[in-house]
Amino acid sequence: MNKKWNYSSFGIPDSYFIRGKAPMTKEEVRAVVMGKLRLQEDNIFIDVGAGTGSVSIEAALKLSKGKVYAIEYKEEALNLLEVNKNAFELNNIEILKGRGKTELNKIEAFDRIFIGGSGGELPWIMDHALQHLSQEGRIVITAVTLETLTSALHGLKDKGFQEVEMVSIGVSKGRSTGNYTLMEAQNTIYVLSATKR
Amino acid sequence: MNKKWNYSSFGIPDSYFIRGKAPMTKEEVRAVVMGKLRLQEDNIFIDVGAGTGSVSIEAALKLSKGKVYAIEYKEEALNLLEVNKNAFELNNIEILKGRGKTELNKIEAFDRIFIGGSGGELPWIMDHALQHLSQEGRIVITAVTLETLTSALHGLKDKGFQEVEMVSIGVSKGRSTGNYTLMEAQNTIYVLSATKR
Amino acid sequence: MNKKWNYSSFGIPDSYFIRGKAPMTKEEVRAVVMGKLRLQEDNIFIDVGAGTGSVSIEAALKLSKGKVYAIEYKEEALNLLEVNKNAFELNNIEILKGRGKTELNKIEAFDRIFIGGSGGELPWIMDHALQHLSQEGRIVITAVTLETLTSALHGLKDKGFQEVEMVSIGVSKGRSTGNYTLMEAQNTIYVLSATKR
Amino acid sequence: MNKKWNYSSFGIPDSYFIRGKAPMTKEEVRAVVMGKLRLQEDNIFIDVGAGTGSVSIEAALKLSKGKVYAIEYKEEALNLLEVNKNAFELNNIEILKGRGKTELNKIEAFDRIFIGGSGGELPWIMDHALQHLSQEGRIVITAVTLETLTSALHGLKDKGFQEVEMVSIGVSKGRSTGNYTLMEAQNTIYVLSATKR
Repeated sequence: MNKKWNYSSFGIPDSYFIRGKAPMTKEEVRAVVMGKLRLQEDNIFIDVGAGTGSVSIEAALKLSKGKVYAIEYKEEALNLLEVNKNAFELNNIEILKGRGKTELNKIEAFDRIFIGGSGGELPWIMDHALQHLSQEGRIVITAVTLETLTSALHGLKDKGFQEVEMVSIGVSKGRSTGNYTLMEAQNTIYVLSATKR
Repeated sequence: MNKKWNYSSFGIPDSYFIRGKAPMTKEEVRAVVMGKLRLQEDNIFIDVGAGTGSVSIEAALKLSKGKVYAIEYKEEALNLLEVNKNAFELNNIEILKGRGKTELNKIEAFDRIFIGGSGGELPWIMDHALQHLSQEGRIVITAVTLETLTSALHGLKDKGFQEVEMVSIGVSKGRSTGNYTLMEAQNTIYVLSATKR
Repeated sequence: MNKKWNYSSFGIPDSYFIRGKAPMTKEEVRAVVMGKLRLQEDNIFIDVGAGTGSVSIEAALKLSKGKVYAIEYKEEALNLLEVNKNAFELNNIEILKGRGKTELNKIEAFDRIFIGGSGGELPWIMDHALQHLSQEGRIVITAVTLETLTSALHGLKDKGFQEVEMVSIGVSKGRSTGNYTLMEAQNTIYVLSATKR
Repeated sequence: MNKKWNYSSFGIPDSYFIRGKAPMTKEEVRAVVMGKLRLQEDNIFIDVGAGTGSVSIEAALKLSKGKVYAIEYKEEALNLLEVNKNAFELNNIEILKGRGKTELNKIEAFDRIFIGGSGGELPWIMDHALQHLSQEGRIVITAVTLETLTSALHGLKDKGFQEVEMVSIGVSKGRSTGNYTLMEAQNTIYVLSATKR
């Protein structure tokens, strides 16, 4: 299918992305993440640990006057990121190769930041985000482990973010086997979000 | 807060809506529903059983060149729908007062349809949707009961919709009580979706 | 570890059973099933689709004056069933090799019945159970598909069982990876139960 | 209904207990807790924060040669505890009125301990349990908040308990409304367990 991004700029099925072994925020959780980001079309948005780039791409399609910085350091994910960026014919995504800590310092100001994977740098990134986010800017974090959840939740509160919120999302997907529909569970994802005010 | 819709056209917190006792599709599930709809900006979209109008409004903000028909027959919900439509200063929502069966016949063609409440008319509405949806049009249904889930799932398959999919979404929301965070569970919602092809 | 059944007669970890590829009701769901059965120590209990025998064995340990009939027709499961029965040194389990429909007719009367797998015979088994269960006898059914759930729930109600109840159980298990705890989701299981009165 | 405990000594429905406003571990979670305790009939078992006493009573019915100490300090819960103990005609439950820290020091040795509510004394209780539990003794903790979960999980590991395990249990209960079955969600409960070795 060519010109996939023309099909819909709001809501992209998982199957539209080229996927490897890089982790990908699944469709339903990605929808929740996009909602919590509360993007405006002229926003500067940073995706830390972009993986296959599904969040970067869905955001880029919405940011008709804005820009996405996709930070990633793993070689395989970087390749997929490039491939997907090209498949969706997007020119408002800039891929930054490196660790969050290093690359974030290269971006002067931003309005939205999503941290899907942080490799242990989460506290530093939260501090940086609080300093450099624009007023009313939004931070969204996903966690799959109890320790990241705790660190993110208490970090957001202690550092002084406002409107701190945490939800858990448990998705099961119906799979047909003959005349039966089996519900296949995905692991629960925790989505944290807050506003800089 | 005035000009709420200016704040963000992608992702609206529940608190931005004026709510009464009418049922409202909650923020996270609404995000998943919006994703499954795969809206394009020029779509004609029908919201059957619009309730407070949260889905209608979120869709209307995305449909810069399209239109929303919000069908509802309950008096209290109709009032909230009107109030919310005005609060978001939207003029691409037309409220249709009546039952789905009656009102749907007044709309010639459409590209997307969401059924959040159907008062027993679901099989008829699915038939109608299959006939009148545009090619590649999308239908999305939410169910909270086992019987609606079964009727919707088997209806979509038997009637000949394509890409039939069903996911369950279980959301818990963290609530702070002193130094503790309690996870409050919302009832699981089933989101069904399909394409007319 | 020998004499495992001596360790504890109430609550057996999954790891105590010898497992093959045969399906096994996992520990937490098995605990809920055992609770819903409301066993009394002199009960005659039938386990239809016994698989590895984890439910049969946990029941047999409680039925100091009762008996378990474990019905299974798959060769591999039958072997595991035999191995586990011997490992727990139980002599109040009788293994019946065959389909539920055939084997149930060989048992005159019973007080409790659990159907973990029915291979399409569920409606017949519910009818049979209603006729042959002793007064105040209990039936418990687990379902993993939407269709079995619906068939079991409406079957129990329509056939005239009392105290019909349905719960869904979603279990996630914490798994340590370094300093992190990942929550791994198991598929949701539906547990139905009812009383003959 | 008199002689309730005669009806079944394995698996007690919630409705069999007299309940007030005191918190009660619900039936399905109680079944999982009982399983994780791996009771043996001659065990000394302590229930810290016994509430209405549902766990104490279900344990007492299994401990034909053992004993239950039910610790509780809230007046209302103490009354319900007494009422339920009498309703089930149990004489192997000793109710200890006071805080865990004080009352635990009065019990010389024990084989099993359940902490359903600890009022901030959890770290102390875990230390005490590790010292005073018999070899191969079991500790089970339920948590409903993220902070108790974290404290319990890391406490059990750091203090040197063995076989540390954590599961989350999400139960929804089907409720009939006319011809429809609504799934009503209960809050997710975290069940932690470990062995002293």
